[in-house]
Amino acid sequence: MAEKTSIVVFSGDLDKAMAAFVIAVGAAASGMDVTLFFTFWGLNVIKKGGLWRGEGFMGKMFNMMGRGGDAIGPSRLNMLGIGRWLMKRIMRKKNVKLPSEMIREAKELGVKFLACEMSMRVMGVRKEDLIEVDGIVGVATYIQEASKSNITLFI
Amino acid sequence: MAEKTSIVVFSGDLDKAMAAFVIAVGAAASGMDVTLFFTFWGLNVIKKGGLWRGEGFMGKMFNMMGRGGDAIGPSRLNMLGIGRWLMKRIMRKKNVKLPSEMIREAKELGVKFLACEMSMRVMGVRKEDLIEVDGIVGVATYIQEASKSNITLFI
Amino acid sequence: MAEKTSIVVFSGDLDKAMAAFVIAVGAAASGMDVTLFFTFWGLNVIKKGGLWRGEGFMGKMFNMMGRGGDAIGPSRLNMLGIGRWLMKRIMRKKNVKLPSEMIREAKELGVKFLACEMSMRVMGVRKEDLIEVDGIVGVATYIQEASKSNITLFI
Repeated sequence: MAEKTSIVVFSGDLDKAMAAFVIAVGAAASGMDVTLFFTFWGLNVIKKGGLWRGEGFMGKMFNMMGRGGDAIGPSRLNMLGIGRWLMKRIMRKKNVKLPSEMIREAKELGVKFLACEMSMRVMGVRKEDLIEVDGIVGVATYIQEASKSNITLFI
Repeated sequence: MAEKTSIVVFSGDLDKAMAAFVIAVGAAASGMDVTLFFTFWGLNVIKKGGLWRGEGFMGKMFNMMGRGGDAIGPSRLNMLGIGRWLMKRIMRKKNVKLPSEMIREAKELGVKFLACEMSMRVMGVRKEDLIEVDGIVGVATYIQEASKSNITLFI
Repeated sequence: MAEKTSIVVFSGDLDKAMAAFVIAVGAAASGMDVTLFFTFWGLNVIKKGGLWRGEGFMGKMFNMMGRGGDAIGPSRLNMLGIGRWLMKRIMRKKNVKLPSEMIREAKELGVKFLACEMSMRVMGVRKEDLIEVDGIVGVATYIQEASKSNITLFI
């Protein structure tokens, strides 16, 4: 029986979505069956038109946050919530969503994309708003997959 | 051996609590043993007097967020953090906590409710502040349950 | 085969870091092999120089939040986001990070500390910025550990 990983992507924050994709891609590259369940704000991650135009800028911001001299280190930024604010601001300004390369890489490695039917209804998201997914499913499908998974995460 | 699901409900945010309950109810409906561990802010979810009086309004807000025209779509709202702000505001104004129906449904399906003893002490929450739970327990009980679970989540 | 717990510590928030450590210590005390993977903001938790100087004050704040009279109960504080704001403010003012005692206790019980290599690069964190860890590793190492774990959490 193949090893399995099931991740609920609940958050629409760039940092958390990136973590979800890094783990998904890593697990798929290790030969595991991987399923991502996009629900609530996580649906934003797989909306069409999400472009990753700010990659260079983002990298620079991260570096600045990490090496910005004594006065304004990364942990300080984080504590004030500015790190998060900055990311949000960049996401808004640049229409940054998830790196499209990460989505492509995940798909190439066979990661399964499932969208939560109930969340779509509640949040007014239609099938045509999303990139191509492997299914629009209910919670029962998630339970079935997750109960056979070695790794289960809620992100 | 029965299949098991263990969920730590750490967050007191309505959206996350709803996700926890949807998964719990789904797993219980699939025949699994389900345990919810309410800790930290999650204790607010099972406080007495939590009423779900805003259901209609909430549904309307979600719809507005999803279909509010071109200028202000849901992802944009989410990126600005307004979605979350709106939910908080509604929760405060209307004294909305978790849909009481979801709690009732979970209990009817046999979902076990456990409250974290240490969190209660730290946050000054007394037994009589909570709805009826199946136990007030320490972390050892959580570990025992979770280590035998197919699905383990931290929400 | 020993029972295993793998926790991704993604958040740098004090409350979530505390939850991660309580679970890690609890699992280790129950005889499980426990690994903590510090990634993204979670790296702040294991930065050098993190002092837990506000313990008494923190306890008092929590109590105040819990017993502050009718006008300003904990759930209300939480809903307004003030609880979180207060914690952040205390963390900033007092340079509070994670209770150093919890880190020490976890290490004494054999909890393994792994730092995420990619996050360190992206966020400009150097090895010498961190307390002593058991390894600086890539996602493949996480997957290997997590896929053999009974309990997998993302915090």
